[in-house]
Amino acid sequence: MSLIVLGTVAIDNIKTTTGWKRDLLGGSASHFCMSASLFSKVHLVSVVGDDFPKKHLNFLKKKGVDLTSLLEEEGKSFCWEGEYKKSDLNNAITISTELGVLLNYVPQVSVVHESLPYVFLANFDPDLQYQFLQRMTKPKLVGMDTMNLWLTIKRNSVLKLVKKVDLFIANDAEAKMLTKENNLIKAAKQIRKMGPKWVVIKKGEHGVYFHSDKFHFSFPAFPVENVLDPTGAGDTFAGGIMGYLVKHQKFDEKTFRNALTYATTLSSFNVEGFGMSKTAPLNLTKVNQRRKALIKFIAP
Amino acid sequence: MSLIVLGTVAIDNIKTTTGWKRDLLGGSASHFCMSASLFSKVHLVSVVGDDFPKKHLNFLKKKGVDLTSLLEEEGKSFCWEGEYKKSDLNNAITISTELGVLLNYVPQVSVVHESLPYVFLANFDPDLQYQFLQRMTKPKLVGMDTMNLWLTIKRNSVLKLVKKVDLFIANDAEAKMLTKENNLIKAAKQIRKMGPKWVVIKKGEHGVYFHSDKFHFSFPAFPVENVLDPTGAGDTFAGGIMGYLVKHQKFDEKTFRNALTYATTLSSFNVEGFGMSKTAPLNLTKVNQRRKALIKFIAP
Repeated sequence: MSLIVLGTVAIDNIKTTTGWKRDLLGGSASHFCMSASLFSKVHLVSVVGDDFPKKHLNFLKKKGVDLTSLLEEEGKSFCWEGEYKKSDLNNAITISTELGVLLNYVPQVSVVHESLPYVFLANFDPDLQYQFLQRMTKPKLVGMDTMNLWLTIKRNSVLKLVKKVDLFIANDAEAKMLTKENNLIKAAKQIRKMGPKWVVIKKGEHGVYFHSDKFHFSFPAFPVENVLDPTGAGDTFAGGIMGYLVKHQKFDEKTFRNALTYATTLSSFNVEGFGMSKTAPLNLTKVNQRRKALIKFIAP
Repeated sequence: MSLIVLGTVAIDNIKTTTGWKRDLLGGSASHFCMSASLFSKVHLVSVVGDDFPKKHLNFLKKKGVDLTSLLEEEGKSFCWEGEYKKSDLNNAITISTELGVLLNYVPQVSVVHESLPYVFLANFDPDLQYQFLQRMTKPKLVGMDTMNLWLTIKRNSVLKLVKKVDLFIANDAEAKMLTKENNLIKAAKQIRKMGPKWVVIKKGEHGVYFHSDKFHFSFPAFPVENVLDPTGAGDTFAGGIMGYLVKHQKFDEKTFRNALTYATTLSSFNVEGFGMSKTAPLNLTKVNQRRKALIKFIAP
């Protein structure tokens, strides 16, 4: 079974303590695809400029990601330059953002993919997320992620979108911003009331809290001593959840717990290297090995 | 088997959103005893003034806490007035501290208790913690807790004490202050090198991280929607660990994991009420019930 994802595909330049890492494959949809493609076929909906490195596209293709609905437009690709301070690796400091071809982008979905049942809206302008969702004819499970920026400048658009979503994924600060509630359990309950059946609140190094009407649970993160670059960790996490759910097509407690241990495992690899340096070489055998260690670490 | 604890016994006045809660039984040793006495006999080493409410002493006695080494001195009892802001329930704001009889206190241990093997140094002046430990003739397992204040004004005293300790308990901010290391796993490893075999790092609403040479693990906190008063949560937590360890007298992985799920359970009750209003009525049956729910919540 396959899933379709809308999100950004970017060139990331990251400032590190030892210099710049340039021309990394970045963007919410790229990291999502990287991770989800370990479990399921993924169709990518996004846009790049004509300057976009071919090696990145080839890499995604090699991972089995379908690029039929990835547009290549004249102009510059979306480019993000950022930095993480050692004292606060959970928060990226944006140095510059060049929207490039994103500026005039309207999501295009190949007709053969419009009726796909599993849809994920990776972090992106909520109006584009909404437009894209409208294009999908038979959505069965819709997941979404967002970020603080959209909750600040397009709050109403996010609120309108949340109603249409089954699985809502956000980090703790975003969940608090969305609900204006400081307690995460209360915040998750409020989000549940807005529409989504399943609410996943990511807490960075502190792990994750999952909420639904029938069950809830929490896991700590996998212990990582050398966090180098958390860019894309949340997207990698979301990809792990969606990929696993779509592969198994079950939505019971056991499946969600499994999906979240996979997501936790995958994002722990992501933060250990710049860009996708640690996630790119992954296969399910390596992932299962670390997941086993995670389960040993967190079992009561 | 029994354990001996040095720490403060205080009168707490807590400012809440609906007014003051006054004359609560507080202090690091009181909360510790409350919790540890569910599992083991506890001998309390501390001091109170002649104004200390008899009802609080009777209450501790009823809980089976031995008060032989609790001095009653002329003068005022140690009194703490504080407030928690709803926006940050993890950090107490001290309104006033009256040291009273604590000012001239030198720990006195009844001769019959000097050779007790299980010793806990609840949060207190590290010089007094050290003096008290010197008085103990056959310590087999020594645990300690501290706070940011001592790491600021008596850092060297804390460092000297840590060397003598088997079980070190601190919250995340304190572990970072002690080691000047921002990553908690690295911080725990550094503390391990300072002496303690077992390092417990409390993360408030995010749970706990346990570190030793042979095994490490992490649990999230029990989900509490209405945190009213976290005063004493850390002491309650420490009491749960020590009480359980002393009862079972095993120090293997399984025992530590059990001890920490009990500690997590106990501190979740503590934060749900002012002072000891939620922990005072506890018995092991009630604790086991919630611990079962915790285990269900956190099991991968």
